[in-house]
Amino acid sequence: MTSVGIGKECLGWAARDPSGVLSPWTFTRRVLGSEDVSLDITHCGVCYADVVWTRNKMGDSKYPLVPGHEIVGVVREVGSGVHSFKVGDHVGVGTYVNSCRECEYCDEGLEVHCLKGSVHTFNSVDTDNTITKGGYSSFIVVHERYCFKIPDNYPLAQAAPLLCAGLTVYTPMMRHNMNQPGKSLGVIGLGGLGHLAVKFGKAFGLNVTVFSTSKSKEKEALSILGADKFVVSSDPQQMSALARSLDFIIDTASGDHQFDPFMSLLKTFGVLVLVGFPSEIKLQPANLILGAKTIAGSLTGGTKQTKEMLEFCAANKIYPEIEVVPIQYANEALERMINKDVKYRFVIDIENSLK
Amino acid sequence: MTSVGIGKECLGWAARDPSGVLSPWTFTRRVLGSEDVSLDITHCGVCYADVVWTRNKMGDSKYPLVPGHEIVGVVREVGSGVHSFKVGDHVGVGTYVNSCRECEYCDEGLEVHCLKGSVHTFNSVDTDNTITKGGYSSFIVVHERYCFKIPDNYPLAQAAPLLCAGLTVYTPMMRHNMNQPGKSLGVIGLGGLGHLAVKFGKAFGLNVTVFSTSKSKEKEALSILGADKFVVSSDPQQMSALARSLDFIIDTASGDHQFDPFMSLLKTFGVLVLVGFPSEIKLQPANLILGAKTIAGSLTGGTKQTKEMLEFCAANKIYPEIEVVPIQYANEALERMINKDVKYRFVIDIENSLK
Repeated sequence: MTSVGIGKECLGWAARDPSGVLSPWTFTRRVLGSEDVSLDITHCGVCYADVVWTRNKMGDSKYPLVPGHEIVGVVREVGSGVHSFKVGDHVGVGTYVNSCRECEYCDEGLEVHCLKGSVHTFNSVDTDNTITKGGYSSFIVVHERYCFKIPDNYPLAQAAPLLCAGLTVYTPMMRHNMNQPGKSLGVIGLGGLGHLAVKFGKAFGLNVTVFSTSKSKEKEALSILGADKFVVSSDPQQMSALARSLDFIIDTASGDHQFDPFMSLLKTFGVLVLVGFPSEIKLQPANLILGAKTIAGSLTGGTKQTKEMLEFCAANKIYPEIEVVPIQYANEALERMINKDVKYRFVIDIENSLK
Repeated sequence: MTSVGIGKECLGWAARDPSGVLSPWTFTRRVLGSEDVSLDITHCGVCYADVVWTRNKMGDSKYPLVPGHEIVGVVREVGSGVHSFKVGDHVGVGTYVNSCRECEYCDEGLEVHCLKGSVHTFNSVDTDNTITKGGYSSFIVVHERYCFKIPDNYPLAQAAPLLCAGLTVYTPMMRHNMNQPGKSLGVIGLGGLGHLAVKFGKAFGLNVTVFSTSKSKEKEALSILGADKFVVSSDPQQMSALARSLDFIIDTASGDHQFDPFMSLLKTFGVLVLVGFPSEIKLQPANLILGAKTIAGSLTGGTKQTKEMLEFCAANKIYPEIEVVPIQYANEALERMINKDVKYRFVIDIENSLK
């Protein structure tokens, strides 16, 4: 409960160079500030961003780099000015840990769009000029504004993927009115984001069609995730049978793919939201103009939406499908994620394996 | 006031083949039905669609082809069941003259999106299997639903371009909330559509920036059209000075152009609406995802919006800038429009020249 002195030592796993190979590394977390919360991390989800920055794919990686921004844990200490949390609370931290707190976006709880740029949970320069370190580590110190209460009884391991993957699909679905019961939703891609989009879609009362390049995902999409329909997107017949039938599409695929075949499945005024990261978007103007259709991007969400999403998941019993692994498996987990060999999100059991 | 008998002869100018050359041609309009209005055409605007179909650029032109879908005139006759119009009324007809009148879109006054397809004003197969003939002609017979009252005292010649160009920019501006005073609007392209987008933008109380490839349009954009700023879009310095400054962009350019430079001018949650018809849309996903931006298409508008738009123009004294020409000048007008040599819309003086 002090804001001066020397920060505490923290054990993490860090990448040291663009090979991205992770290994144990000890560093110092900042001293707890008066508005800070310190949490013992119990779990951290494995996000594709962890691959991108451990391997320096954006060219801005700062090594040693501790990844992880789907963080869940238990509050161990709170600063004297902290109002929202107490020791023992179950909390989460998502993709950012700071922002200017005074621009129009921060004011509206949309900190991810902060005009001065939000400070990412890892590999970002914080306001004190230190480089942020992510959740592949034993604890984290964060301003309470960027810390979220995990609802009572919600399993901590399953809460982790909500902090990035869950928020990334929930935010645009809410913004583009995809929560209207009876409407039809297409979900492109069935990974960490896509499988949660299916679950949100069903919770919103939508008729959900999953589009995947792999027929092998059909059974699970229908039986475990509860989708209403499964379409192999490379099959022109299956695709054309759905022409002008969908109100919305959420596109979670990060691999390159055509957009025109999907745009033609939208009804008039239909909306495709892009949350994956292909290398390029290319489409025929007619596929936007005729039918007055929309394609929009989205990027996680603000603190207001995060809280709302966590409550929504608890109230509607939305639980990510996860594979829990020890930190010692992190490198293999990243490899398997690259190969899309995960159903549907790895979560690292920090609490029991990082020692 | 009869619905049986032989239709009346109508003098028009028609293209006979893909050369697109127009010349006088006499054809028969249908007999006035009980819900039909017959109007003596006084003016017809010259739209790029007239070039597209007279020259068979879509491959579906049916010759002889009488173009023109920015039609204005005076009611000469009304069917016995017509409730909304009387002889002598000033009326307009836009881009479609029929629709199923029973689908969800027709029910909502969005007939342009009719599920069975709206019947275009020319070169379309009507429900009686005749091919529709446009407004480069002396009169037209149309169901009263697709006929619009031109507000009292609004000049007929200037009303013509509102029926397509005006509606095409008004509809998406309203749909995407571009009518919020104090917000900033970019207008790409300064032709028939673009110059009206500037006028609507100013009437909505927006701060309007015009983007053009040609510096020569600056003076007019600012002084005659009332834009607040003019930017030569090929100048990277002028462009980057506007980074993240615009709430909306309406893109009226039909020539091919890059989208990324314009997307980067949008603020977070900014919207670019495409109403021009370039050959392809290509953009970087980051330009949609970061800032959660939107690109949307739009296509003229429904009967409800048409009425609203006409009233709005009258109330706000929005008048298209036009060059009035006789029908004998039609071929040259089309050529000049292709060469962008018009400020800003040709209107054919049917009443005084077509005899």
